[in-house]
Amino acid sequence: MQKKVFQLLVDNTSGVLSRISGLFSRRGYNIESITAGVTADPRFTRITIVTSGDEQILDQIEKQVAKLVDVRDIRELAPEDSVYRELCMVKVRVDAEKRPGIVSVAGIFRANIIDVGPESMIIEITGNQGKIEAFLKLLDGYEILELARTGIAGLNRGADKVIYLDD
Amino acid sequence: MQKKVFQLLVDNTSGVLSRISGLFSRRGYNIESITAGVTADPRFTRITIVTSGDEQILDQIEKQVAKLVDVRDIRELAPEDSVYRELCMVKVRVDAEKRPGIVSVAGIFRANIIDVGPESMIIEITGNQGKIEAFLKLLDGYEILELARTGIAGLNRGADKVIYLDD
Repeated sequence: MQKKVFQLLVDNTSGVLSRISGLFSRRGYNIESITAGVTADPRFTRITIVTSGDEQILDQIEKQVAKLVDVRDIRELAPEDSVYRELCMVKVRVDAEKRPGIVSVAGIFRANIIDVGPESMIIEITGNQGKIEAFLKLLDGYEILELARTGIAGLNRGADKVIYLDD
Repeated sequence: MQKKVFQLLVDNTSGVLSRISGLFSRRGYNIESITAGVTADPRFTRITIVTSGDEQILDQIEKQVAKLVDVRDIRELAPEDSVYRELCMVKVRVDAEKRPGIVSVAGIFRANIIDVGPESMIIEITGNQGKIEAFLKLLDGYEILELARTGIAGLNRGADKVIYLDD
């Protein structure tokens, strides 16, 4: 079992996401996290997929995805030369008395408090998965009302310009 | 045309993403952004989908998604009582001479510099889509080498605990 991060560039069409996720699921492979957002050029969408499984099968899936209509590029983002980041928002039940405790934990992690109500607080934190897990562990004593994580997005380090496009 | 943000809670199975995105694409509806990440409970995944289109058709899609196997819940995140956040990483070509200019723009937006090389820099920024667009506009004079956006994740404000689970 190996964890892999794939970065894709695809045409911004309605069927492409379904075809890509279908290729993973047909092999019984779970997409642990996926993020998809527009790029600087609105014709294209960048997708980051985290999955884990047998290396040989992941290689096969990568090749099949590369052949799909509307897929411009798929590449692995190797941990040693990539930067991964994830955004996590967590809503915690907290009254005025407990508030300073949460604020100080947030400060240590450079997390931001983005909403405060009389009984709850929403905290935003970004970082790699390890940092986010560590932060969530520190919140163990509090009641977590809701949690939303984006899944990771990643970039290669270094000044290489990634040229995918044929224009 | 209306923009809508849906929040889903689904079982963490391999086929669910493909079935959900398939329902959108069969109607010719583009998913503008999607984020999917694990929740506090590893059996479940939270998905946030941004899409736009005819309100009536979006209502139909919402109802169909709700009926899918492995989908526990789908609800709209209305802008007036939700917090949306997105993470964006941007790699810019920048040498030592131009570096201070980028650092000062990043400071204004409370963006973080997460990687620096001799010819490039990776900046991380989080915020709503408007803030990220404004930041990217300020980088107009620089060469953007790569851009990765997670797409938005969102939470309802207020202390309601969202109970989806039957256990």
